[in-house]
Amino acid sequence: MITANARAVYGPSDPFKATTIDRRDLEPHDVLIEIKYAGICHSDIHTARSEWRQEQYPIVPGHEIAGIVTEVGSKVTKFTVGDRVGVGCMVDSCGECENCRKGEEQYCLKGSTMTYADIDKYGQRTQGGYSTHIVVEEDFVLRIPEGISLDVAAPLLCAGITTYSPLNRWKAGPGKKVAVVGLGGLGHMAVKIAHAMGAEVTVLSQTLRKKEDGLRLGADHYYATSDPETFEKLAGTFDLIINTVSAKLDVNAYLSLLALDGTLVNVGAPAEPMSLNVFSLIGGRRSYAGSLIGGIRETQEMLDFCAEHNIGSEIEVISADQIDEAYERVLASDVRYRFVIDISTMTA
Amino acid sequence: MITANARAVYGPSDPFKATTIDRRDLEPHDVLIEIKYAGICHSDIHTARSEWRQEQYPIVPGHEIAGIVTEVGSKVTKFTVGDRVGVGCMVDSCGECENCRKGEEQYCLKGSTMTYADIDKYGQRTQGGYSTHIVVEEDFVLRIPEGISLDVAAPLLCAGITTYSPLNRWKAGPGKKVAVVGLGGLGHMAVKIAHAMGAEVTVLSQTLRKKEDGLRLGADHYYATSDPETFEKLAGTFDLIINTVSAKLDVNAYLSLLALDGTLVNVGAPAEPMSLNVFSLIGGRRSYAGSLIGGIRETQEMLDFCAEHNIGSEIEVISADQIDEAYERVLASDVRYRFVIDISTMTA
Repeated sequence: MITANARAVYGPSDPFKATTIDRRDLEPHDVLIEIKYAGICHSDIHTARSEWRQEQYPIVPGHEIAGIVTEVGSKVTKFTVGDRVGVGCMVDSCGECENCRKGEEQYCLKGSTMTYADIDKYGQRTQGGYSTHIVVEEDFVLRIPEGISLDVAAPLLCAGITTYSPLNRWKAGPGKKVAVVGLGGLGHMAVKIAHAMGAEVTVLSQTLRKKEDGLRLGADHYYATSDPETFEKLAGTFDLIINTVSAKLDVNAYLSLLALDGTLVNVGAPAEPMSLNVFSLIGGRRSYAGSLIGGIRETQEMLDFCAEHNIGSEIEVISADQIDEAYERVLASDVRYRFVIDISTMTA
Repeated sequence: MITANARAVYGPSDPFKATTIDRRDLEPHDVLIEIKYAGICHSDIHTARSEWRQEQYPIVPGHEIAGIVTEVGSKVTKFTVGDRVGVGCMVDSCGECENCRKGEEQYCLKGSTMTYADIDKYGQRTQGGYSTHIVVEEDFVLRIPEGISLDVAAPLLCAGITTYSPLNRWKAGPGKKVAVVGLGGLGHMAVKIAHAMGAEVTVLSQTLRKKEDGLRLGADHYYATSDPETFEKLAGTFDLIINTVSAKLDVNAYLSLLALDGTLVNVGAPAEPMSLNVFSLIGGRRSYAGSLIGGIRETQEMLDFCAEHNIGSEIEVISADQIDEAYERVLASDVRYRFVIDISTMTA
């Protein structure tokens, strides 16, 4: 058994506390990772606070993990000690279903094993990256290319792949007009990646407050959605809209911004249902789609793409004692654009 | 001016009356068609009764038109007298916008001119196929291949292309599992076409009442949607679902029947908005799309495909005096599967 320092919550309204957790001894295909950085994703907050469902406590969140391999199991072939690696939202899947065989483990028909707040195949509750060490089966470990620092790489494991995957699938690239709704942790990655793919990128944000940032990150245009003229002016414009906002919005208004055959993709979802006028789809052969992170193969492809294009997340590094404060600032949209915990500060 | 016999309604609750209408003298690119058969589409009823919007009366409906060219304008190059031709839902479009230039005139950004209940570029109210003659610009006239009789060809001009277009775009074919929701005028064409394309076809109908028909038309499987077990059994099955039902239905239940990357396409729309749970899309990278008839080039392609595969509509031929009765039977779903008016019965 390996003991790791961690930060956990013990109830939906509780602050984080320093603790230790056990990590399993290495199975033949396991990799032990010394975590260097862990990003703070909005999902961590939803889960820590039981906002999506009633969770079991304690919870150690964190699924944007970057670190170094410090030990490998007897049959590990993909990694050796010293490798720079990452772990994202999943640590396992059945490996046998149709979707797993396609390399789309996130859609595992038996349900992939989430990095935290889940039960793994050993019957153990999974605990995430707000900790000093993690043990993960090698097939769910990603290689972080030399070109990217571990701190700015960490958020790529969720925010990066969540936006890369739909941009890739719906073919963002030269000649394509792509809009990104919301310029937060996910949105700023979508802007960088879509720009690097060669698309013409527009940010649709509530206000123009972050306009300068948006343009610096790679957007060609920036519009405020609080201005009704935006929707008139941009009607029928985009081939692809990536909606990173989980709050309920007027989906018909956003669909009206799509050109013929355009697609609006939600990468987050509001808890309440959307009210959709089907004429919004029919008039323009438009699609409304959803996308969930990405498979392991595609996540590696995303990391290699980001290294090649010199893309990392825009981050604010915090210490292990600042997680509660960071959560409040995420909720107030007061972060540009991702908090990353420096795990070296995570003393027992 | 050309005088045609016609059947028109003079108000939303009125029966059809025999009348005559004027057709314009041929412009250089116009074709005069002697109509032989006109299909009755559910849209005709919605329009005749002002159910979608307040219409201007009188209205001569009909956009499933098959006939013979009897005269051509001085500059017509595509047709000659005696040609077997069809006219569908559109008789004109701007020809210059991005969508028209792509051959997708149904999505003309300036609005295509509908075959009836619209205003054409001459400022005249368009009147449809429940008439003995029509004058149409040659670019909006389709050639009906020799292999298809005019009576069974007529419904292809709307019901055929409306289902062919999404089946074609979303690549129904060998190895693809396609479901068709509703076995009516549109649905029965979707079954025939999807089967001819090589897909494995499932009908999802309220009851098993038309099961025998469905299998005869080309379906491999037939399920009743009134049976809740259908949704359990077929969860995650289909690559493509063509929803031909315009009534409001539980879209989340139908989305749950899609496999990874599957698409649900509505070819009709309820007046009220749908309540859509976005998690239905995200879990499986599913899409919800809409599709509106098809462009002229694709409509010709559909007619040629139908001729090649010996596909026509299943019809019940009626006389011009039976339109009111036919409308009632359409509303009662008492037609297998399309009423077609024999225009030779349309005396003044």
